[in-house]
Amino acid sequence: MANQLLIKNVRRQGQSAADLLVRNGIIAEIGPALTPDTAGVPVIEGNNDLLIPALVEAHVHFDKTLWGLPWHGHQAGPLLTDRIAFEREYFSAQNLAPEPQAAAVVRQAIAMGSLHIRSHADVTPELGLRRVEALLAIREQFADQINLQIVAFPQLGVQAVPGTSALIDEAIALGADVVGGIDPSAIDRDPVAHLDAIFGIADRRGVGIDIHHHETGNLGAFSIELIAERTRALGLQGRVMISHAYSLGSIAPSETARLADLLAKQEIAIMTAAPGNVSFPPVKLLRDAGVTVCLGSDSIRDCWSPFGNADMLERAMLLAMRSGFRTDADLDLAFDLATYGGAHALGVNDYGVEVGCQADFVLLPYETQAETIATRGPNRRVVSAGALIANVGVYEA
Amino acid sequence: MANQLLIKNVRRQGQSAADLLVRNGIIAEIGPALTPDTAGVPVIEGNNDLLIPALVEAHVHFDKTLWGLPWHGHQAGPLLTDRIAFEREYFSAQNLAPEPQAAAVVRQAIAMGSLHIRSHADVTPELGLRRVEALLAIREQFADQINLQIVAFPQLGVQAVPGTSALIDEAIALGADVVGGIDPSAIDRDPVAHLDAIFGIADRRGVGIDIHHHETGNLGAFSIELIAERTRALGLQGRVMISHAYSLGSIAPSETARLADLLAKQEIAIMTAAPGNVSFPPVKLLRDAGVTVCLGSDSIRDCWSPFGNADMLERAMLLAMRSGFRTDADLDLAFDLATYGGAHALGVNDYGVEVGCQADFVLLPYETQAETIATRGPNRRVVSAGALIANVGVYEA
Repeated sequence: MANQLLIKNVRRQGQSAADLLVRNGIIAEIGPALTPDTAGVPVIEGNNDLLIPALVEAHVHFDKTLWGLPWHGHQAGPLLTDRIAFEREYFSAQNLAPEPQAAAVVRQAIAMGSLHIRSHADVTPELGLRRVEALLAIREQFADQINLQIVAFPQLGVQAVPGTSALIDEAIALGADVVGGIDPSAIDRDPVAHLDAIFGIADRRGVGIDIHHHETGNLGAFSIELIAERTRALGLQGRVMISHAYSLGSIAPSETARLADLLAKQEIAIMTAAPGNVSFPPVKLLRDAGVTVCLGSDSIRDCWSPFGNADMLERAMLLAMRSGFRTDADLDLAFDLATYGGAHALGVNDYGVEVGCQADFVLLPYETQAETIATRGPNRRVVSAGALIANVGVYEA
Repeated sequence: MANQLLIKNVRRQGQSAADLLVRNGIIAEIGPALTPDTAGVPVIEGNNDLLIPALVEAHVHFDKTLWGLPWHGHQAGPLLTDRIAFEREYFSAQNLAPEPQAAAVVRQAIAMGSLHIRSHADVTPELGLRRVEALLAIREQFADQINLQIVAFPQLGVQAVPGTSALIDEAIALGADVVGGIDPSAIDRDPVAHLDAIFGIADRRGVGIDIHHHETGNLGAFSIELIAERTRALGLQGRVMISHAYSLGSIAPSETARLADLLAKQEIAIMTAAPGNVSFPPVKLLRDAGVTVCLGSDSIRDCWSPFGNADMLERAMLLAMRSGFRTDADLDLAFDLATYGGAHALGVNDYGVEVGCQADFVLLPYETQAETIATRGPNRRVVSAGALIANVGVYEA
């Protein structure tokens, strides 16, 4: 007998209210006055709520978060390298294991409706595969509730820190999903060697790539060209993401447009966290050019920033405010980056709220997608694989 | 017998837990194990919560909000003048009375902990004093809970719209607290005439001034000089606010520093809403120069913007993110703008959480002021004049 769930009286964006029947974790039927196949099937009264697909968190660092610990006043200096150095010292001095905080923030992410998540895990000779192993354990712990992708992330660089390349390769063998990279020039100091190393691993292992890219201006634009060349040469279209891509917001508009065409052609996705006080990619221009764009929280209360709360609707609001978005059409675009755009970038199959899609969704007492971004708040019911697992901001699985 | 309230076991920032006894709306005693003068005094168990002074909303438009109405998809065009025109048409076509929405958003503001509020009310020949009368009625309705200041605001200009000056004068006579102004050059097209008109009314009526100031670059800087000259000439130090002051974020840093000294000397306050995609004042530089700086929501779900929710802790977060603030010291500065800075700018007496202060405060289950900004959420208990009036985001008075 199929495992079923009946959701009564919910609305999908732009459609009238209907019932929705889930069988074995898949949306099996949508229509008026549905009845389950047997008695005793659980029923959720939808109260005419808006039903949206599960939110997608495309970039987070679960291995770094201090979520659930006492308040941590920010201490790291202003430079990227200051933060990298401070975090290493802090985790070491505090003898902090990442698992408890990672589990706490996963519960928070679920309560906010994110069920497809890509997290980076630092890989360095000092840490070895400790952080990757921690996130593999977290993935196992929450396997019934979330889809967690793990990026083996060389936070300190690859060429700059001998031994890192072999560790990333090992991390993939161990179960990490994606090869990470970081500022080929500004951090690793040798763009060709850096990119050849990480693309080499990805090619050999048959996995994707996700590159932290804080380089600004023309230096960043140059890296993007090198990334696109390797993506084309290795046939990795659709499997490469450039995270942050600050340069796309800090070069001449004509250059941004040229790079957008390049990214679209090589199917390279762009992730932004909508940062507060640095340049970031013009998401509407990128989307209009056919580039896949997605959103991530990045830091969530860690040694890098006191902010972040794993709420992708808040992240969509921040993106909208930073982008000057006000119309419903623009807010729908921001919403899309936190849902369909993220799902496409992460390669999630059967994503959405149509018959045949995975039964991963969120119910909110709002009229429209735009209103979910404007109002936000904990008022959400989260269904994963056909089971209610969070309500009013509280994880209940 | 004095009207009393005992709050047990609360912490003020940086101090150990204590009890707090309120008599007749004033904080009468703070200390360990306090007991009320008589039996039957209401007691709030503080649970070791952080106790902060009531938040200060220094700039809002209660007469424009659509809060509580069905979702309004943004329709106005991109220019300031587009929004001014669209709003007039919309309110007229919908035959909208401002009072119900204003009352709804006041309840929201209270639930979020704002008890000292400055709202603008449009004054135009077409509207007459209708909007001012609406906010006077709202002030009366919530007189026991909030301190509401009303600015008679010439949204369409003063010189540009004959009759407006006399209406502002009437509005003050009717009970509005502050004379408003708007972009003396960019909107009203005659900076000297505009400023002479509004300073003339303020001088004659013995009230303060609050000028909407969206002018950027050197044009805005020029207006600020003219405002400072008139403030000095009329002895209005401490009674003039420049709201938005975008120009302070869009001129050469040396010019900003020079204007900051001028503003400090003439005790002119600066209000920012920490906008998402335009330049705004560098608040740390201004504070270091001795300028009073405060925060406002500005639009709250109206014809101007779908965003805004009357939560001054969220506004402080937005300011912090836009300003690159991360340390506790910087977050404390953002917090200060939403509390003490606002109280000083609005001339609120006996503000704070010391003995002798008005018993207007908020209890939150967080460790520090910085954490209140990072975490936010509805988890707040709001006490006004010694009475609990909101809890967990719900207005209960």
